[in-house]
Amino acid sequence: MMKSKTEYLTFNTLTTRAFVNITSNVRKIVEGSGIKEGLCLVNAMHITASVFINDNERGLHQDFDKWLEKLAPHAPANDQYKHNETGEDNADAHLKRQIMGREVIVAITNGKLDFGPWEQIFYGEFDGRRNKRVLVKVIGE
Amino acid sequence: MMKSKTEYLTFNTLTTRAFVNITSNVRKIVEGSGIKEGLCLVNAMHITASVFINDNERGLHQDFDKWLEKLAPHAPANDQYKHNETGEDNADAHLKRQIMGREVIVAITNGKLDFGPWEQIFYGEFDGRRNKRVLVKVIGE
Amino acid sequence: MMKSKTEYLTFNTLTTRAFVNITSNVRKIVEGSGIKEGLCLVNAMHITASVFINDNERGLHQDFDKWLEKLAPHAPANDQYKHNETGEDNADAHLKRQIMGREVIVAITNGKLDFGPWEQIFYGEFDGRRNKRVLVKVIGE
Repeated sequence: MMKSKTEYLTFNTLTTRAFVNITSNVRKIVEGSGIKEGLCLVNAMHITASVFINDNERGLHQDFDKWLEKLAPHAPANDQYKHNETGEDNADAHLKRQIMGREVIVAITNGKLDFGPWEQIFYGEFDGRRNKRVLVKVIGE
Repeated sequence: MMKSKTEYLTFNTLTTRAFVNITSNVRKIVEGSGIKEGLCLVNAMHITASVFINDNERGLHQDFDKWLEKLAPHAPANDQYKHNETGEDNADAHLKRQIMGREVIVAITNGKLDFGPWEQIFYGEFDGRRNKRVLVKVIGE
Repeated sequence: MMKSKTEYLTFNTLTTRAFVNITSNVRKIVEGSGIKEGLCLVNAMHITASVFINDNERGLHQDFDKWLEKLAPHAPANDQYKHNETGEDNADAHLKRQIMGREVIVAITNGKLDFGPWEQIFYGEFDGRRNKRVLVKVIGE
């Protein structure tokens, strides 16, 4: 019989852009689900945020931030983005999220996140300072 | 017992590049599948197209198009891309698709697409004007 | 009843950066699993490598390599990346992997990879010359 478990995490970052390590949150949900073999989906439910897997290293996160600003600069907010003519100033956040991705799928093997040695799951915020949600869904048996 | 449902959507865009909102197509398939808890895969079956989730806002789509042209310009088709020496002129489309992604996985909860407030599914075409397919597969129970 | 099958592939590329066609490896695992309807997850287990689906065309792979070097250059390793102050020289590889992606999910229909005409699965290495693993997990029935 297939089992499933769905939970929602809420984040409200202090800064407009932030990276939050959510590995232990996801691990708890997976281990609490009782599912031994399956898949775990983790996705941002907002379209100016990402969920991705990479290194838990502060310098790299600074590199990501600088790099994303180079590829999709926030400023000037009004001259370069049509989206911001709607009154928003977050067009760059929608672009950054495409580079970093919306979601990850992690294998569950023997009841655990089946990870390589350095894999960690991050919530990437590009338009923060308000409540935003991440969905975690485990299916398997 | 696990259930599954597989369907294929076909698109033939009038322009080389286009973004098409396919949320209602996917919703119909999910709701018709009778699956209450599971996962829905939506992927481009062609390698010069994307499926992604972002905002249903026309200005943002113009921003995406301009941004992708800056990151991976179409022209000049013959001087900058080895792939185009094969007689193709769509190397840029293969690159753009990597930024925007091939696929999304959406959670199905209580028989519905488990979406945040603004999430919409788009087909992103980068080499259109011919029939191209999108696969939708729902598994769960 | 849900079935699952998990296997690991190991790659040790001769060059720092490389693209390896792993479609036949994945196909063998899927066809050996006995699963007729389901999903197949293929992901890099290392955070300086990618799994992606695109064209099996050598010129395009050269285009990818040149393009990724333009978007996230390797050199100078010491002046532009905070991550490399830890003694690493692979910050660029972490960035390139975000563009190309960590994973793909492929539908399994009638016991086969449900692919469009040109879809092939690649392992993308951005910091090679040592053993690195790819996870393949099939679930379904």
